[in-house]
Amino acid sequence: MNTTVQTVMKKLINTPERVVRDALEGIAVAHADLIRVHFDPDYIVRVDAPVQGKVGLVSGGGSGHEPMHGGFVGMGMLDAACPGAVFTSPVPDQMAAATKAVDGGAGVLHIVKNYTGDIMNFEMAAELADADGIQVASVVINDDVAVQDSLYTAGRRGVGATVLAEKITGAAAEARMPLAEVQRVCEKVNGWGRSMGMALTSCIVPAKGSPTFDLPADEMEIGIGIHGEPGRRREPLKPARDIVEELATPIFEDLPFNSGDQVLAFVNGMGGTPLIELYIVYKELARLCDQRGLRITRRLIGSYITSLEMAGTSITLLKLDDELTRLWDAPVHTPALRWGV
Amino acid sequence: MNTTVQTVMKKLINTPERVVRDALEGIAVAHADLIRVHFDPDYIVRVDAPVQGKVGLVSGGGSGHEPMHGGFVGMGMLDAACPGAVFTSPVPDQMAAATKAVDGGAGVLHIVKNYTGDIMNFEMAAELADADGIQVASVVINDDVAVQDSLYTAGRRGVGATVLAEKITGAAAEARMPLAEVQRVCEKVNGWGRSMGMALTSCIVPAKGSPTFDLPADEMEIGIGIHGEPGRRREPLKPARDIVEELATPIFEDLPFNSGDQVLAFVNGMGGTPLIELYIVYKELARLCDQRGLRITRRLIGSYITSLEMAGTSITLLKLDDELTRLWDAPVHTPALRWGV
Repeated sequence: MNTTVQTVMKKLINTPERVVRDALEGIAVAHADLIRVHFDPDYIVRVDAPVQGKVGLVSGGGSGHEPMHGGFVGMGMLDAACPGAVFTSPVPDQMAAATKAVDGGAGVLHIVKNYTGDIMNFEMAAELADADGIQVASVVINDDVAVQDSLYTAGRRGVGATVLAEKITGAAAEARMPLAEVQRVCEKVNGWGRSMGMALTSCIVPAKGSPTFDLPADEMEIGIGIHGEPGRRREPLKPARDIVEELATPIFEDLPFNSGDQVLAFVNGMGGTPLIELYIVYKELARLCDQRGLRITRRLIGSYITSLEMAGTSITLLKLDDELTRLWDAPVHTPALRWGV
Repeated sequence: MNTTVQTVMKKLINTPERVVRDALEGIAVAHADLIRVHFDPDYIVRVDAPVQGKVGLVSGGGSGHEPMHGGFVGMGMLDAACPGAVFTSPVPDQMAAATKAVDGGAGVLHIVKNYTGDIMNFEMAAELADADGIQVASVVINDDVAVQDSLYTAGRRGVGATVLAEKITGAAAEARMPLAEVQRVCEKVNGWGRSMGMALTSCIVPAKGSPTFDLPADEMEIGIGIHGEPGRRREPLKPARDIVEELATPIFEDLPFNSGDQVLAFVNGMGGTPLIELYIVYKELARLCDQRGLRITRRLIGSYITSLEMAGTSITLLKLDDELTRLWDAPVHTPALRWGV
């Protein structure tokens, strides 16, 4: 059996050209208590921005990874997010306008996933902001252990740790840490977080209308990127326990994580994977962590950094200390993550 | 173009026989702070059950609809949930054991979706509990306006309003309302809630291994049930605005909702639908509500009552008054819904 899965585009959209705009208009009316959406240039911003005396946090990237990043704007997390076209970097104008909108006098941190377009455009935006007298620092997230270089990336890709960095760094900023400290916390999350993902199916970019890649009906891709970039290898489908072991082992060995470490375990769905499967993945991951003596003291299970309707999962492990645990536990109130309020 | 979408089973599972057990083991280790999982008979129960003096709330149904119901066990929502095999009613032994486990002396309410098997088995469980001296009341949820009778149902099916009923009734029980009052609140939610859903693709029940129904590549099913039961009709794919209008109009007209009403709008994903599409659906729904003079004062957007990996959406509107609004806003702390704590 080696037939390709025949995939047609079946989406709840109006037109391919309207996808990002319509979704932004949806998030704007749905969450007017938390965020405002600015159009042309497009960015999502906290309803109470700029917060005086607080470091502003800005992230962004291509659309198609929802709820990342727009769903993470709000108290205790991002001050603004810049959505590009699907799987396409936002432009410097968006990032510069968002940076200006959230500057409360304490500087702004850019959290940037390691993709060539994002890096370049956030750098240009930082220069524009600097010309406006805004102090900007930047952290590049590159937690994906799957591959060294990739289709859109020099070095490792930025994936699941981005979600954790936005939450934890958001708490640091909310606690009124100064810019250098907020940057240090974000770098710590990136330094201590490792991820790897896999896909059962491709996704379909609306403007293209056909699958990003072809995956035979009996195969999966291990080490996939969030835009469908090739991973480490294609393999026959396997039981979940074997898939999770293939994802977790390179993570365990990379940092390295050591017996006795406390970790946050993040099991992420790629957009088309139902929750029942994510709990099976979590069960297998918890067993492997247990075998290695890692104590999962915090967890996140759900679809938080996605690739449109791709079926698949990614695993992120973040080593925790008291500081990161405390910041993770701090209140957050965004469309996609909420606790403590 | 009238080719069938060729679908093969690609799932993150160990074996089809292990799906429910593995997922339950996953939820048990993931959320040990909130819930315990009892095996043989299987039920998920609040970690602090029974709560003395509080009405116990029990729901349940076939697995495959996660996070419903197990993900809704915890403070402010369900006391216990009974998971059956995939798309198969739990058995009376499970429901009776769960009822006993959550009885804190104030009686127990069963929240039952209107499916023939669930109704029959919850009735038997209520008789078993009654023999143990536990006072049991029951509310049947039947909010689906799509069809009158259906494959597994006499009368309307119980769908999205179940999620809202579990939250709101949970708050009523948490506030120590007596059993008759908790039952009244649950009946009010059912009486004021209306839903309708649609599917772009079928799902695959693991034990079967092939799609529940065939849907041509250029068609959708309007009025689908959460087990893939046939809906009102099959139609060519349309833009989201037209799909939402087809779902919302029968809802608007059924209650009927009137200009000036306050409503909770719940846009639900069927399991394989990414969030970006749900926000497009929400945008279109908000526009239609606005045209009719309905004020959306509360909302829920996400995949909360699913059909495995089915792509599609359902819309639920619940008319709100001060009582329902206050109970909706009350704190909740479950694996799948959390605010206020």
